[in-house]
Parts: sequence; structure tokens; C-alpha cells
Amino acid sequence: MQPVFFTPGPAALYPTVQQHYQEAFRLSIGSISHRSAQFRKIYQHADEQLRQLFNLPKQNNAILFTGSATEIWERIIMNTVEHECFHLVNGSFSKKFFDFAQELHKYAHAAHKPFGEGFDASDVSVPEYAELICATANETSSGVQMRPQEIHKLKRANKSKFMAVDMVSSAPYTNLDFTVVDTAFFSVQKAFGMPAGLGVWIANESMLEKAERMKKHEGVIGTYHSLPSLWENYKKFETPETPNVMGIYVLGKVAEDFNRIGVEQIRKETDKKAKALYDFAKKSDRFEAFVENELHRSATVVVLNCHEAAGAVINKVKESSGMVVGSGYGKMKETQIRIANFPAVSLEQVETLIHTLNTI
Amino acid sequence: MQPVFFTPGPAALYPTVQQHYQEAFRLSIGSISHRSAQFRKIYQHADEQLRQLFNLPKQNNAILFTGSATEIWERIIMNTVEHECFHLVNGSFSKKFFDFAQELHKYAHAAHKPFGEGFDASDVSVPEYAELICATANETSSGVQMRPQEIHKLKRANKSKFMAVDMVSSAPYTNLDFTVVDTAFFSVQKAFGMPAGLGVWIANESMLEKAERMKKHEGVIGTYHSLPSLWENYKKFETPETPNVMGIYVLGKVAEDFNRIGVEQIRKETDKKAKALYDFAKKSDRFEAFVENELHRSATVVVLNCHEAAGAVINKVKESSGMVVGSGYGKMKETQIRIANFPAVSLEQVETLIHTLNTI
Repeated sequence: MQPVFFTPGPAALYPTVQQHYQEAFRLSIGSISHRSAQFRKIYQHADEQLRQLFNLPKQNNAILFTGSATEIWERIIMNTVEHECFHLVNGSFSKKFFDFAQELHKYAHAAHKPFGEGFDASDVSVPEYAELICATANETSSGVQMRPQEIHKLKRANKSKFMAVDMVSSAPYTNLDFTVVDTAFFSVQKAFGMPAGLGVWIANESMLEKAERMKKHEGVIGTYHSLPSLWENYKKFETPETPNVMGIYVLGKVAEDFNRIGVEQIRKETDKKAKALYDFAKKSDRFEAFVENELHRSATVVVLNCHEAAGAVINKVKESSGMVVGSGYGKMKETQIRIANFPAVSLEQVETLIHTLNTI
Repeated sequence: MQPVFFTPGPAALYPTVQQHYQEAFRLSIGSISHRSAQFRKIYQHADEQLRQLFNLPKQNNAILFTGSATEIWERIIMNTVEHECFHLVNGSFSKKFFDFAQELHKYAHAAHKPFGEGFDASDVSVPEYAELICATANETSSGVQMRPQEIHKLKRANKSKFMAVDMVSSAPYTNLDFTVVDTAFFSVQKAFGMPAGLGVWIANESMLEKAERMKKHEGVIGTYHSLPSLWENYKKFETPETPNVMGIYVLGKVAEDFNRIGVEQIRKETDKKAKALYDFAKKSDRFEAFVENELHRSATVVVLNCHEAAGAVINKVKESSGMVVGSGYGKMKETQIRIANFPAVSLEQVETLIHTLNTI
């Protein structure tokens, strides 16, 4: 029997994914031209399904594909920041986004919070000349969320600045208002339960205009994956390079599966499973929720402190139930476990995991 | 029945590819961590098989993974060119490589040849201050090759400059000497017969040193996919971001399949199939080889002028045999067809195609 993955990414495959790949092989989707009408229909289908899932405004935005969400950190900074940006840093991934800005020689400001703590809008004072604010809806390393209403509040208080939201490990759970935020992004190997190798970038037209202006003023905004290049191709549902065609096909199918269930239903189920996990931790005398402030606790990546060696817990769970939970990130490897709560795992599987954690 | 693709990329899947994907699903390779020993073994296996296939020197080089070969154009220029580079341009793809250098604000020189013509070392005078020479082993748009001995000669005459070889649609046919050239790259949806979404970049240590020097001197060399970042991760067979793990697994398996046949045997079969196609064109009064100079004719992408409308030829071939040949590139769409001659198609299939072209 194949193990059940509760790892926060790569994660459990969504139950329909393998069958969508089989269908893709049957339809020769690995061989079709990325300049064909057949490919354009695949892109358009993914676009339509993702628009429904994320409740995107009909106009003035685009859904673009890259190799990874990591790539999108780089592309956002290159395409929207002439001089200064501002990052909310409270874990390893929000820190990397900040590091990228420095490596690209931008004047990068940051507000820092300790690992395990989260941001509210009222905590944050945005530097006057920052052109871009970078928030992380879900810090995969620490299991901390920034609530959508706080992200929206921050943007509304800084209307002239771009608001970018890393929703890598929380899309489509994070209910963003895309009439407010300018850009958000994720990768498919988290909550969409797909094999890795595809990043999804939602961006609006104001960003495109900024990128075009920077280019005109002799700025270096990249080449094939600059925002103007991606967008120009997007208008005809194409990509600048030969993309991960199968991945785009399967993403459209998984988004369609999600829409059939309904994103509100997926959010409810996610909340229910998260509640079960946090309730278990509250009652347990061997585990406890790492994130103290309940409003900052992630629903999609639950991080628990272990009173025994975390590595031993992971091994015992694997041996007794075939379930794989994630290790703590970086320095937390010895003391924490991370449990991904994505649509691919059912409430029954979460209950089995809880039972296992209770009995090992 | 599934069509047989003679398109130059995406192309026919290699016969073992679907089964390697199935095995990958069975082994949960879409869910494993890219920081696990299991992933490092997958990367190492691909590395070993590709090293054998390309006869790489044991030391001082690395095999790195990106989202596409298009990405590698950008990364090479950002990581090795401080000021000036030089491009051999004789078709749409070599032109794009040149365009990228300009978009990245490098002082880019080029030698131009008309579409359908090729370069020999003696044609070329390299600008004194060029730091990088960019050659295209196989111009996919026009079916023109630059022979390895000419590439080697050019590098030997310009030892202080880096030599980069685009072998996108000819690897592993092009027999490069990696003690001579500095870097070469390809993508998996061509001769390796895989679904797109993975670029393969072979680079040597002199390039790494240059990139590190540029970074130290305040140059912008990119972030996660800068050469130093990729290389640092490569040392432990990891990648900076979550990569296309399944693609890397399947690539290692296909390279192993190729090694079982032997690269010399693959080259011989490629030559035999290419000869059959060019011999057919020579005898035909309805088709003729586009590339006049036989020494510049590509073995892997055969471009033919059609005396009737090329679109009609493509449709007739599809209808009568279920085979899909590629259209001419860009302006040549109406007058040319392109026939990919990759390992995925057998001599029998090539003969069937020739028979079909003769009888439609």
C-alpha cells in the first residue's frame, strides 16, 4: 500500500491526479505543440477553472505559468521594484523572498517577527518609498498564517504600493479579494496535490504597466518570463517557452474537481480537519500547538511541538500506520512535526493520524 | 490508435516514457521530499546516466536542472557575461538567444547567416572583448547543424572565451567534447521524448568562478537559479527550489535506456534514418531538402521544401497514416515541413512516413 503523505510539500497527491495524467498520456498531451489550438484550449480551461476557484475579477489580470513559486519571487521583484520593497518576515520562506530582493540589488526593507509569530496590519509600518509589500499568507516553515482581512487592511492603508501575497501552501484556502491585492502565487505540489514543476502567478495590469515602464527606462526585468513577455503570450493562451504542458492540463482538471466540490466547501472541510488536529494537540500531554496565538495558526500546515524526539515520532507513525508526517523546518527538525492539511487528505485520514499519534 | 509524432518538439514520447511515469506514481515520487535521501538518489542516478551518455569529464562540471532550455539562455548570459557576448545567428532560436543578451543589457555582437545556411569556424571572426560565444548545434527552425568539430575549432581559437552550445534539438546526437566546450544545454521534450517542463544545463567550473566573481563585484546574476546557487545545491544532489521531481526521475530512466542501446548506436541509427529522409527528398519531384550544403544539414530535424501547400501535405499525411509532421517555422509555414528524427521514431516508422509522402 502506498503511504499517506501529510508532508507540507511535496505532499499527498490529490486522489484524481494519477488518472488525469493517464488521460493526458492517452490524449498525447506530452507531444502536442504548445503553439497549437489544442494547447490554447488547455491553457484556457485551466484559466477559467482557476478564475472560478479564486473568484478573480473578469478583467485586468492574468494567470501565468512558471517553473516554480520560487521563480515567481524573483520575477515579481524584477518586474515591479525599481528601488525599494518591503517584506513581512517571520519564517524561512518569507525570509527567502526578502533575500531575493537583496540579491537583485533592491533596497529591501523588512519587518521581522520571531519564528512562530504572525503579523496583523496594525503591527506594520510600511516604509514611505517601498513600491511593493510582500506578505506570506502561510509560512510553511512555522505554520503561521496572515489572515486575509489583515492583508487587505494593509493594502487599503497603502493603496499606492503593490501588495504581493505568497499563498504557496494555502491556496485555494486563503480567501483573498483580488480587487484588493495585486498579485498572489502558489505552486502545484502543495494543496493542489500534484507532482512539482509548475508555479502559478496571478498578476494584475498595474503591475504589467509598471514592468513596461521600468523596461522603457532601461531597467532589466528579465527576458522570456518578464511580465510583458508572459502577458503578451497569455493574451492568446500561450507561453513564451515550451511549458509543463501536462502539468497545466492536470492543474485545470484538479481545479475543475475543486470547483465541483466548491471552494467554500473545501474551506469548511479544511477548517474541520484543522480543528480536529489543534483540539487533539490541546488535549495531548505529548504534543502542543507551536503557534500560540490562535488567530495566527495556519489551517493548512499544522506545526506541533513534540515532548519526545520528533524523528522518533515520525518513524513510529510511519511504521504503525504507513502515514508520513513532515519534520520541523531547519533547526526545529528535532522538536517539531508539521502536518499538512490539504484537500488530498480526508477527515477520516486525519482522524486515523490523530489516533496513531495518540497510541504510538 | 495514437498518432506518431514527427514534430520537432514537443515530439513523440520515447516508448518507455509512459511506463516510467507509471512507476514513478507507484513509488510515490510525486510526494517525496526534495530534501530526502530518496530524491538525492534520483538526482544522482540522472547525473550518472547523463554523464555516461555525454561522456563528461569526471570533474569540474555539474549537471543542473531548470524549467526549460529557454531559461538556460537567460541564466548563461546573466552568469557569465559581464559586458560583451557574441552569437552565431542563423535562425529563430539562435536569434532569441541573441535577443535575450540585449534584453539583459549586455553588449551583444552577432554574426548572421541567412535562414537555411550554417556556420563553419573559418566563417567566424570573434570580437576581441566577447566573454562568451554562443553557438547552436542544431537550429530547430531551419534544420541547420553546426558540426561539433567546427564548434571545437572555434573554441580552440578563442580559448579565453566561454563556449556555449545550444543542443536543444540534437542532444545526445551531437558529439561534443566537454573538455573543450564550457557549457551545453537541452530540454527533455525533444530527443529524450519526454513531456516538457525540464531543462538540463551542463556547466563547468570556470563558469562558476566567473559567476562568483561577478557577484562579488556587485553584478546581478539572479537568485535561486544563479550558477553559484544551483552548484551549491548540486554538490549534495539537491536543487534550490522544489524541482520537477518526476521529470528528473524519468530523465534518469530514459538516459539509462539510451545507455543500454549505446550512444554510438543511437547516432548510427539517427544517421541511417536521416539518410533515408534526405535520399527520399533527392529523388522526389515534390519535395526537396531545404538546406543546400550537405555538411550543414541537420540529422535530427529534417526540413523539406514542398512544391504544394505544406498545410495540405501535413493534413494528408495525418489522414492517411495517423502521422504528424511539423510545419515550417514562422514564415515558412506555407512552404516547408519539418520532420523530427529523434530516437523515439524507428527506421520502420520513417520508412512508412516516406512511403506516405510518396503516395499522398
